[in-house]
Amino acid sequence: MRKCKVVFYPDNKQIEVDKGENLLRAAMLAEVHVNASCGGDGTCGKCRVVIDEGRVSRQPSPKLSSEDIEKGYYLACRTHVESDLIVRIPPESRLGEKRVLDRRRTVSACGLLLSPEDALGLVKGWKLDPKVRKLSIQLSPPTLEDNLGDLERLKRELDRKYGIRDFQVSFAALRNLAATLRERNWQATITFLSHGGRERLVQVEAGDRQKYNCGLAVDLGTTTVYAQLLDLNTGKTLVSASDYNAQVSCGEDVITRIIYSQKGENLARLQQLVVSTVNGLIDVLLQKSKRSISDITFMAVAGNTTMTHLFLGLNPKYIREEPYIPTIAFCSLVRARELGLEVGDGVYVYVLPGRASYVGGDITAGILGSGMYQADELTLYIDIGTNGEIVLGNRDWLLSCSCSAGPAFEGGTIKHGMRAMTGAIESVRISRDTYEPMILTIGQTKPKGICGSGMIDAVAELFLSRIIDQKGKFNLDLDTPRVRKNEGGAEYVLTWANETAIGKDIVLTEADIDNLIKTKGAIYAGISILLDSAQIPISDVKQVLIAGGFGHYLELDKAIVLGLVPEIPCERVKFIGNGSLLGARLVLLSKEMESVAEEIARKMTYLELSVNPAFMENFISALFLPHTNIEKFPSVMAALKSRG
Amino acid sequence: MRKCKVVFYPDNKQIEVDKGENLLRAAMLAEVHVNASCGGDGTCGKCRVVIDEGRVSRQPSPKLSSEDIEKGYYLACRTHVESDLIVRIPPESRLGEKRVLDRRRTVSACGLLLSPEDALGLVKGWKLDPKVRKLSIQLSPPTLEDNLGDLERLKRELDRKYGIRDFQVSFAALRNLAATLRERNWQATITFLSHGGRERLVQVEAGDRQKYNCGLAVDLGTTTVYAQLLDLNTGKTLVSASDYNAQVSCGEDVITRIIYSQKGENLARLQQLVVSTVNGLIDVLLQKSKRSISDITFMAVAGNTTMTHLFLGLNPKYIREEPYIPTIAFCSLVRARELGLEVGDGVYVYVLPGRASYVGGDITAGILGSGMYQADELTLYIDIGTNGEIVLGNRDWLLSCSCSAGPAFEGGTIKHGMRAMTGAIESVRISRDTYEPMILTIGQTKPKGICGSGMIDAVAELFLSRIIDQKGKFNLDLDTPRVRKNEGGAEYVLTWANETAIGKDIVLTEADIDNLIKTKGAIYAGISILLDSAQIPISDVKQVLIAGGFGHYLELDKAIVLGLVPEIPCERVKFIGNGSLLGARLVLLSKEMESVAEEIARKMTYLELSVNPAFMENFISALFLPHTNIEKFPSVMAALKSRG
Repeated sequence: MRKCKVVFYPDNKQIEVDKGENLLRAAMLAEVHVNASCGGDGTCGKCRVVIDEGRVSRQPSPKLSSEDIEKGYYLACRTHVESDLIVRIPPESRLGEKRVLDRRRTVSACGLLLSPEDALGLVKGWKLDPKVRKLSIQLSPPTLEDNLGDLERLKRELDRKYGIRDFQVSFAALRNLAATLRERNWQATITFLSHGGRERLVQVEAGDRQKYNCGLAVDLGTTTVYAQLLDLNTGKTLVSASDYNAQVSCGEDVITRIIYSQKGENLARLQQLVVSTVNGLIDVLLQKSKRSISDITFMAVAGNTTMTHLFLGLNPKYIREEPYIPTIAFCSLVRARELGLEVGDGVYVYVLPGRASYVGGDITAGILGSGMYQADELTLYIDIGTNGEIVLGNRDWLLSCSCSAGPAFEGGTIKHGMRAMTGAIESVRISRDTYEPMILTIGQTKPKGICGSGMIDAVAELFLSRIIDQKGKFNLDLDTPRVRKNEGGAEYVLTWANETAIGKDIVLTEADIDNLIKTKGAIYAGISILLDSAQIPISDVKQVLIAGGFGHYLELDKAIVLGLVPEIPCERVKFIGNGSLLGARLVLLSKEMESVAEEIARKMTYLELSVNPAFMENFISALFLPHTNIEKFPSVMAALKSRG
Repeated sequence: MRKCKVVFYPDNKQIEVDKGENLLRAAMLAEVHVNASCGGDGTCGKCRVVIDEGRVSRQPSPKLSSEDIEKGYYLACRTHVESDLIVRIPPESRLGEKRVLDRRRTVSACGLLLSPEDALGLVKGWKLDPKVRKLSIQLSPPTLEDNLGDLERLKRELDRKYGIRDFQVSFAALRNLAATLRERNWQATITFLSHGGRERLVQVEAGDRQKYNCGLAVDLGTTTVYAQLLDLNTGKTLVSASDYNAQVSCGEDVITRIIYSQKGENLARLQQLVVSTVNGLIDVLLQKSKRSISDITFMAVAGNTTMTHLFLGLNPKYIREEPYIPTIAFCSLVRARELGLEVGDGVYVYVLPGRASYVGGDITAGILGSGMYQADELTLYIDIGTNGEIVLGNRDWLLSCSCSAGPAFEGGTIKHGMRAMTGAIESVRISRDTYEPMILTIGQTKPKGICGSGMIDAVAELFLSRIIDQKGKFNLDLDTPRVRKNEGGAEYVLTWANETAIGKDIVLTEADIDNLIKTKGAIYAGISILLDSAQIPISDVKQVLIAGGFGHYLELDKAIVLGLVPEIPCERVKFIGNGSLLGARLVLLSKEMESVAEEIARKMTYLELSVNPAFMENFISALFLPHTNIEKFPSVMAALKSRG
């Protein structure tokens, strides 16, 4: 991707962004304040800028008159960078803004979510060689002299043409064999699944269907389920989709769900709920990609241990009871239909192996898909989901732990929280002078709520602008209508009702902030314990991989201000997005990755935090912004000091 | 089995029988006429004899007064041979009998069905080594330090104790793993299925259940389904049961059923019907043996190609259409539950492989279970079921064919026909003088009907006593009430209503005899074509194996009189009973037999009779008793001549 340099005046701040980047986001990344309250929808008309030099592309907006256009005005939120630019922010767009911060940003990439294709580049040396392949074949019709049975005829030709013999046959593939072979004059396409060094014939289709070979990668999150459809012949990701895990109605976190599962038919119900979520996603993916159900030939699923147990219909009871033992850490292939998944009869599901009850296949997948398992340098892997899992190590060793973080970063327990999808506020800046926000939503439409990255931004900005204190409590003495108190407690208005898609004020409440602080405290404590156990200072960590479904951007600076992660140089950090999905996808694309995944799960050492007395101590210390001991965060301390 | 010599006076005939043989049967085998009309039930009281020398055992009968007993009378049907005997038939038991035939019988064993244990002796060099074994194991309970998942813990111990690793795991076996392992304090029994050189874990039970390891052998007949439960640890046959195939309601023979299967949901219906029959048999076997459903660990099923297709739910359409191609000749393992069989989740079914659409797994099973595949000498295998299949060959080559015989020998299309079960008339003699019958039923109870062996006897006897002619037509001029004509045509009364269990006369009609002649004609024609094709005279055949579910006895002499089989010396013939079941059983007991079965199916050459012009010619010539060309049956010719 070509990089473009954008210089903003009068602040004289510059930033390097990808060609095509939205100009409002470029301003945000450069710490340049532009009023913007409609999330990038083009409807508030507040983010007017003038392009002094360079090329941009723009979308029309009724908020700009032809006169405005003649004068050279653009709405930053509707404008995209096409070359190096010099941009001027006119006074009306900076209303009330007085001070200019002198900190310069030159790197923004650490906040950017890797694209699916870039993410595959994290792992070295793998080759496209999926577990499932389709082979086309032409049989000679039978005669009285050559009267082999249909299956035996097929086997003979597979041996002749491809040298394949001695394979297993899924009985389900044979049900319509006679009709299928005769449908297109004895031309057929055979699907083979390679497993444990053996081939298995799992499907026979009429005609030549070699090019229709899709895999489904699924991340079974406690709160959110993500799915991607991949073309297994090309390795391309075709479409993605996500939805809340329908189990959420039975409990927010894994412990609640385990308790729920112990009564009556609830285990079966939980199984059906998550399967219905996956079935729904399959529908969406097929519609979006205009593919048919029979194109799907294989599935790889990653999730935490409780989620995979519930998905498989296995009783998770002993996951919750000391000594916390799962039924299965390493699962064999399972027939998708047996689980209730609405795919072809010959489709099998590979469930990524986990290490323990609280370090599951999602983490194995992340270690695999992020390439951490190949890393020469010391790496810290942080997966922020409903649970927070942390892994420290490199190609030689892996030490893991888990801390129950809660679903705040996925929108759970947050008043206007939502998943990272269209309409979610994903970036927030708040003017230190006027306390006015500058917000950007996913898809740049009117805001519907706020997702994880938006919350990280918002809480950090509320803290940096002193709207909240170190404990997350509001300063109610400020001269702004955005901070207010009502029956539910204090809150900050991110967007006024008339500028939202939901017709009411979108706020962040003191209770929301409290939840976020607990969540980040648990994760920070987990990181600390892991580093302490290995007796490694954070400065020795050469690479930090952050996984999680917060949004498309994670502002590392803001995450540090929040105290979610220790102070780490930006260039050491990669935000890989959904690590679980990365690994599931890699297993679909390369069969050898399955044994790598199993090796990773086997190799990981697991530290049980629930019986570790230092954990609670660390957790309590981390319930401040950024931390009780602010000396651990020198750059945050400096930033606060620089503004008195 | 110890043999006893029994001499009958005044005929001065002698016979060698097994110790324990019923005395009435001994008389029958010796061609000694004793009046007997209640089938051996002890209720007609007509079969009085006197024991002059030797030991017998007897059951009491109200038909013998204490005076009778004092005088030394016995009812032959209630008396069993315990040593060499001299038996006198008093005049009242021979009422109306004038002539004494001078033919002597010295061998009877060729008519006797082999016992299950003797049948296993037909195959040399196999050893008890079933596909399924159970292993008992004691695990150490998990701790925080030793926190492997349940499955991984189990695998570790299986490796430690038995050196088993690298096996596949059936997902179904894991559903209740957590609870099962904890149920008996971490003691468990693991069931392994060996397939294709690999082990597969298919079941986990709590506690030590090693000794509960049963296999189910099933012969899927077109008319009758036979099943046996075997103890796989000892190789013993525990119990047997049979029932009509519930599909009979949809058609008598395979062609009718194939036609039926082509409409609407009929294929699924046929599948459900035969599965319901098998499920019913499983119930009966478990009740009889006092075993539980979880004892069954494996199933082997043999049947003709149409039957196995319908059992598996595969469309049999192309079996019927030239060039007569089955979907599968060699089937992989199938999960029993998937077919609707009510057995454990981990139970798999092995379906014996067939050669062609009309030489199926039942024949492969017979060639296997009879040991024909090992034979040095030239052997003729004849399976008489609803279809007749014939195989000629030895260890080096096998030539097979099939002729649609019809279900007459299994009781189908015969007015009082029934399966070989309790109450079925299985042996018949008819006095040449009085035309009175001497009958014996299975279980020696009052007759309910007549089974295959009884029909062979009856038709041969009717012919020898000139009650019917060579075409099977009745001589209505005889002075006996047993031969009569009513609206349905001519018939012979085997038992009067008051001596039956069904309250009406049991008869054999001219139409019945016509059906039997067509059936035997088809089989004889098949045998002739096969011998002609191989250019081998019947005299070169050193061994004849006759399979079929006629009853416990097959009188070879009578079968020859009927013209069902060519004239063969008695000592060359073995009546093996249900050959299909023998093979299915052997596959259960010895896993290596599975590849032997596949080798047999592969090796067989198949001769398609439906396109063979000589077949119809041979068939028409065989529609006489014993044959149009009676010179082919010199001994029958001699017997007829000896009586003028």
